[in-house]
Amino acid sequence: MNPILIQEIRFHLARGDKKVIQEFAEDFHPAMLAEFVGPMNAPDLASFLQCLPPLQRGEVFSYLEVPVQVNLAHSMRRDQLAELVTNMSPDERADLVKKLKEETLEALWPALAWAEREDIRRLSGYAEGTAGAVMTTDYVTLLPNQTAREAIDSIRREAPDRETIYYAYVLGQDRELIGSTSLKDLILARPETKVEELMVPNPISVRLSDDKEQVAITIGKYDLLAIPVVDDDGRIVGIITVDDIVDVVQDEATEDMQKAGGMMALDDPYLNTTFKRMFSKRAGWLATLFVGEMLTATAMGYFEGEIAKAVVLALFVPLIISSGGNAGSQASTLVIRAMALGEVTLRDWWKVFWRELSVGFVLGGLLGVIGFSRVVIWQSIYPMYGEHYMLIALTVMTSLIGVVTFGTLAGSLLPFVLRRFGMDPASASAPFVATLVDVTGLIIYFGSAMLLLRGTLL
Amino acid sequence: MNPILIQEIRFHLARGDKKVIQEFAEDFHPAMLAEFVGPMNAPDLASFLQCLPPLQRGEVFSYLEVPVQVNLAHSMRRDQLAELVTNMSPDERADLVKKLKEETLEALWPALAWAEREDIRRLSGYAEGTAGAVMTTDYVTLLPNQTAREAIDSIRREAPDRETIYYAYVLGQDRELIGSTSLKDLILARPETKVEELMVPNPISVRLSDDKEQVAITIGKYDLLAIPVVDDDGRIVGIITVDDIVDVVQDEATEDMQKAGGMMALDDPYLNTTFKRMFSKRAGWLATLFVGEMLTATAMGYFEGEIAKAVVLALFVPLIISSGGNAGSQASTLVIRAMALGEVTLRDWWKVFWRELSVGFVLGGLLGVIGFSRVVIWQSIYPMYGEHYMLIALTVMTSLIGVVTFGTLAGSLLPFVLRRFGMDPASASAPFVATLVDVTGLIIYFGSAMLLLRGTLL
Repeated sequence: MNPILIQEIRFHLARGDKKVIQEFAEDFHPAMLAEFVGPMNAPDLASFLQCLPPLQRGEVFSYLEVPVQVNLAHSMRRDQLAELVTNMSPDERADLVKKLKEETLEALWPALAWAEREDIRRLSGYAEGTAGAVMTTDYVTLLPNQTAREAIDSIRREAPDRETIYYAYVLGQDRELIGSTSLKDLILARPETKVEELMVPNPISVRLSDDKEQVAITIGKYDLLAIPVVDDDGRIVGIITVDDIVDVVQDEATEDMQKAGGMMALDDPYLNTTFKRMFSKRAGWLATLFVGEMLTATAMGYFEGEIAKAVVLALFVPLIISSGGNAGSQASTLVIRAMALGEVTLRDWWKVFWRELSVGFVLGGLLGVIGFSRVVIWQSIYPMYGEHYMLIALTVMTSLIGVVTFGTLAGSLLPFVLRRFGMDPASASAPFVATLVDVTGLIIYFGSAMLLLRGTLL
Repeated sequence: MNPILIQEIRFHLARGDKKVIQEFAEDFHPAMLAEFVGPMNAPDLASFLQCLPPLQRGEVFSYLEVPVQVNLAHSMRRDQLAELVTNMSPDERADLVKKLKEETLEALWPALAWAEREDIRRLSGYAEGTAGAVMTTDYVTLLPNQTAREAIDSIRREAPDRETIYYAYVLGQDRELIGSTSLKDLILARPETKVEELMVPNPISVRLSDDKEQVAITIGKYDLLAIPVVDDDGRIVGIITVDDIVDVVQDEATEDMQKAGGMMALDDPYLNTTFKRMFSKRAGWLATLFVGEMLTATAMGYFEGEIAKAVVLALFVPLIISSGGNAGSQASTLVIRAMALGEVTLRDWWKVFWRELSVGFVLGGLLGVIGFSRVVIWQSIYPMYGEHYMLIALTVMTSLIGVVTFGTLAGSLLPFVLRRFGMDPASASAPFVATLVDVTGLIIYFGSAMLLLRGTLL
């Protein structure tokens, strides 16, 4: 990224100029430092981090890419690793610990304080993709009968350890969440006001098992900086901060797009993905779709006699089936995205069905008219479709209306079917829909031809 | 949304129970209130808002959907609208004003204070999609020689009007941005510490004309709650808060997905889009792709003689061209998303080219082997491909390798071509790539056939 800076850092590391490194590091955001030093080799990187004060070390380490973190963790001294892990934020260290090798973990475990161990154990126990797996346990709590002044004092005391001090959560007798308040409201209030009077009762919260996509929608809807996570008894167990939600939103969109493009989600940046991994993420779906698409050869085989009699029919096969696929791709994309944003739920399938039926029919009509004109106009310039060209034009038009309507319906309903059976609607990819539609498209096309061309061409 | 609540609100409105409405409203987040009352008719909605205190009124109004806002604004008294607009946050009122009718605007203008007018004029002047158009002008500034205590006092004074008080920006002699500090650091510092000593110098900032997608990437990378926007002279002119960025990220992902699905971006939620609008967003691309796809009929016409001689060739047309399209869809999706996230830039095209060439070749080989086996195995069960079935199997395999490699390359490079010419790479949709690949696929397939089957079937 920045070879000159790396050279300089190496130079000072080699001379053991801890002071220079520290002064240099002070001027940069931890994310930027991580970007600078990320490409260094493990021993240099480790000695660079050792120069930094513990808190900053934890921060910079958190911003390193996960494979670099894991690599570094495995090569560190046990006590160094324990200190580092203690200074990381709870959600990030839980993510790291999940990826460490058994033996590193076994060495690390006894070196950690009991509270940290418990915290990591709890946080890494929640299922991937749930609120529990994204949340952090660094948050500020208050009691309802504290005054605003007392509240600010307690926030000031706890601040250095807390990820977000801008919201504080008010707990009842059994640690159940009864209200939330912001540092802004506390600062603005008269110092003697009770927290009870200041707080918003029954604050918006999510449950441990809620899907992280749902959490993102909620936090976006209410413009929150953080949202509390409660257990089944309504007790607060963590918070999710909006900066983590920005990552969730980007990751989910990436995943959905990649699935909708007809492959498995890559999970890593494009240029960081190895050839082998890239191949395995793409080959599965591509081969499955290929096997599905083989049905077209079977269907075409069924109509071989018709094609032999009227070769002209074969000419329009790609045009007609691809139109169905394109219409289906539009419909499935719309529904997949609307589902991801919570705009459309399973119950809406009937509404979507009628809407797409009508849109599909009109779109099919449009393409039908263009297709009809194409055959008629072409024939007047190069007479290649024979004396029955009007019937051929009619066959093309009828099939297009049928294929586009069917494609649109199939594309819009497939995400509902997938979700209904607990699968990800985003898997209703453009290629998947196209494959479904291709076989049906052939049947619609040759079916129309047999009806309309019987006694003339067939 | 909640018919019982609406009934009750209507009942109290009709009785003129302002107090009951206010007490009811106190318990809810403005976003939730907006959701409750959004479906009410305009007069009811207006009198509901009139019951709320001015600040809350502005907040609830901000969360209403834009068409509802505009509708309401047009039916309001001039002074009421002016008061409402004054109490909205600067970024949201600028968005509203852009959508108001000329005459409403002319009536509103003189009723606003000079500062508000200037602010709206400035904010609504920035181009859509830039940092300027997303930013707000409510932010806290400090001077370097203030102490932490003075800084907190001044934040406390300004807080009620400011959207975010959790960051404060430090200005130099000419209002240029020289540092940033957080309320957390101010609260933790000894009260006599100078802001100068506390601040982070040269904070991460964006420029007025920066693309909002780029802003989202920056704010996500550094986990910020807000980012300052500076003009060409480095003077701060606004901030962008992370809650607005969550919306930007969701909207951009929706837009990109819809474009990648082969249509224009819808701009509104699926179920709120009228039939006419839905049709017009989809028909354009669908018809364009259809016209492009017509080339397949032309290409097929060129090989009509070959098909007549060996009808068996027609059977594999859908299978082969769709495989190219699917491979292209994977590649274009990967590159489009990597570009949107800033992982891949124009300069990387060469790297992407080599990577996709090799992945495409191997994927093509995989499908080729499956295709070859399909023909050979099928023949041993139903001998339908004639005595030269091995040659046909070979033609299918060769074509698949060629078509998939070409499809992968075309799909990965099209986004680069589009971006190079200033267009949105997301328009390199799966259907667009498939259409490009279909014609070439036919040429590759029949070309291989003519080479391999000459003297036998052809």
